Amino acid sequence: MTTKFFHSHEPLTLESNEVLKSFTLAYQTYGEYRGDNAILVCHALSGDAHAAFEIEGKKGWWHEAIGPHKMIDTEKFFVICSNVLGSCKGSTGPGSIDPLTQKKFDKTFPVITIADMVNAQEKLIRHLNIESLHAVIGGSMGGMQVLQWGILYPDKMKRCICIASAAQLNAQALAFGAIGRFAILSHDQVSQGLSLARMVGHVTYLSEKAMNQKFGRKLQHDKEYQYDVKPEFQIESYLQYQGEKFTKQFEADAYVYLSKAMSYFDLAKKYGSLEQAFENIRAKFLILSISSDWIYPEPYSKEIAKTMMRLNKDVSYACIPSDYGHDSFLIDIPAFEPLVKPFLQP
Amino acid sequence: MTTKFFHSHEPLTLESNEVLKSFTLAYQTYGEYRGDNAILVCHALSGDAHAAFEIEGKKGWWHEAIGPHKMIDTEKFFVICSNVLGSCKGSTGPGSIDPLTQKKFDKTFPVITIADMVNAQEKLIRHLNIESLHAVIGGSMGGMQVLQWGILYPDKMKRCICIASAAQLNAQALAFGAIGRFAILSHDQVSQGLSLARMVGHVTYLSEKAMNQKFGRKLQHDKEYQYDVKPEFQIESYLQYQGEKFTKQFEADAYVYLSKAMSYFDLAKKYGSLEQAFENIRAKFLILSISSDWIYPEPYSKEIAKTMMRLNKDVSYACIPSDYGHDSFLIDIPAFEPLVKPFLQP
Repeated sequence: MTTKFFHSHEPLTLESNEVLKSFTLAYQTYGEYRGDNAILVCHALSGDAHAAFEIEGKKGWWHEAIGPHKMIDTEKFFVICSNVLGSCKGSTGPGSIDPLTQKKFDKTFPVITIADMVNAQEKLIRHLNIESLHAVIGGSMGGMQVLQWGILYPDKMKRCICIASAAQLNAQALAFGAIGRFAILSHDQVSQGLSLARMVGHVTYLSEKAMNQKFGRKLQHDKEYQYDVKPEFQIESYLQYQGEKFTKQFEADAYVYLSKAMSYFDLAKKYGSLEQAFENIRAKFLILSISSDWIYPEPYSKEIAKTMMRLNKDVSYACIPSDYGHDSFLIDIPAFEPLVKPFLQP
Repeated sequence: MTTKFFHSHEPLTLESNEVLKSFTLAYQTYGEYRGDNAILVCHALSGDAHAAFEIEGKKGWWHEAIGPHKMIDTEKFFVICSNVLGSCKGSTGPGSIDPLTQKKFDKTFPVITIADMVNAQEKLIRHLNIESLHAVIGGSMGGMQVLQWGILYPDKMKRCICIASAAQLNAQALAFGAIGRFAILSHDQVSQGLSLARMVGHVTYLSEKAMNQKFGRKLQHDKEYQYDVKPEFQIESYLQYQGEKFTKQFEADAYVYLSKAMSYFDLAKKYGSLEQAFENIRAKFLILSISSDWIYPEPYSKEIAKTMMRLNKDVSYACIPSDYGHDSFLIDIPAFEPLVKPFLQP
């Protein structure tokens, strides 16, 4: 249950046509492998390989969802989660040492796409001697990986679960992503830029309702305004705290690369149309959107499901009623379990 | 039609209890004053006194709405627009010289509230020898001023039109405002911070639909991705352009002060409840929200109208169907004219 490392010494040709001579993926596994029970979990932008259980006092990012008898039952399934290529949580990314120069890649690291992440993961799956996955599951950027897995490796999984995601970001999500990257790239103190990017991201992940309920207009300390330019509202100090905390957990360059990967993701552009993108998928799909998610709005998930239905693919679709916005898939597991758990039954 | 300046040498006691020994308001007027035909136009965060007509090649910010036979007809009405206290467009603000020290106020400038802006405007109106206004009208932060005018000076106007505004910002709007201020206050290059604040603000002023229609996922130059961390999408370069342009037009400190003034605005907190806030209003009110405005959502305007109705005030309410988001009140005048023009009839 500790982090393992897969070092690939085969070159990986990226979508940009650049070649990574070698790469490393950090990954964790939970449960026992029995030949046909492997589930690959794909994480979102700020995620890592540590998806489940408590390790050294820290709970995995999908702790509520993965474990014995949980939504993804580790008594039944062998669960794999790997940190994506381009990230900074043990896998090769812009913060890694370039073997050619023995210096950090930084901005010389090639741009990574969702397909590149998936191709690297596929090598890990092969390395683990898994011929076919029982399922691939993920939300947000993880959902993009799920779609790309279904398209690139139609025979390598039986089920795909794509949560709170889209076949492409809309202009609004592109804009907020661009602002985050701009904040990082324009700031003298990169960590302040990363903090700002996280703050912007964080607000887009929450619903208006959830923010009003949790923070509203509550003041931090005092009952009355201090008439000062300093932060006074709880939501301000909360966001600053989240931003600052994030700078200790994540690298600014990795954030830029992963955000860029998400902005590039566009299945209709890549394959000519959504129909052509999904033409050869063979897995059973479950597409889930979230009622209060305004940054990955329902129609984008529905469009994926409708397209698969037009192609007579085996697809189920639901919009999960949950008030926590985009982050619902991380927070509100009871809302997802009734649909995800049966879908994963062998 | 050029900018005039009102210098007040009476001290102005601010809501914070600090006192401005003197202040200046920049203002413009259009049309002819006939004793009972004065309309005060209140501008939004980035606005100025130049609301109408073309002056030195530059059109006023509400050029489409104000002019001969337009929604606010300058053949009939005497229109006044003044730059708010705390801004940087000719009125006293943090960028002004402190008469005590002969240096720029900067952060020593006292925090300004919406009520302070209104109290300063009221002195201007008195200076112009206007006993009673035909109407006060404004959108967004301008709408906040309209509400505050109706409460503080119930006998000084016959009509109030409050567009795309609220009696208080919700947690989401507070958050985006706080991010903008944080961007400015945390940045070594203040103009980059202001640029970022403007980019964030700009996205909140547009609807998802408008952004998709105008920009979608279009690339700036090329048909294919360049696989680079640099901006490629039109929305990215558009936002950067808007951000940069804004830094040449606005002062970062003024932005922080005005943003803070909006975050403080909370009529229910100030008066105990919305009912108590509106108890003594006497003007006829027209409250307008915008269907696609997600940062000042419809329920907030409706709540104002409902409260006034419960108090048996003379109030009309409508949600204007317009696709341009919060900015609709600046862009889509034909959608507002059918309601605003008749309401302004004497």
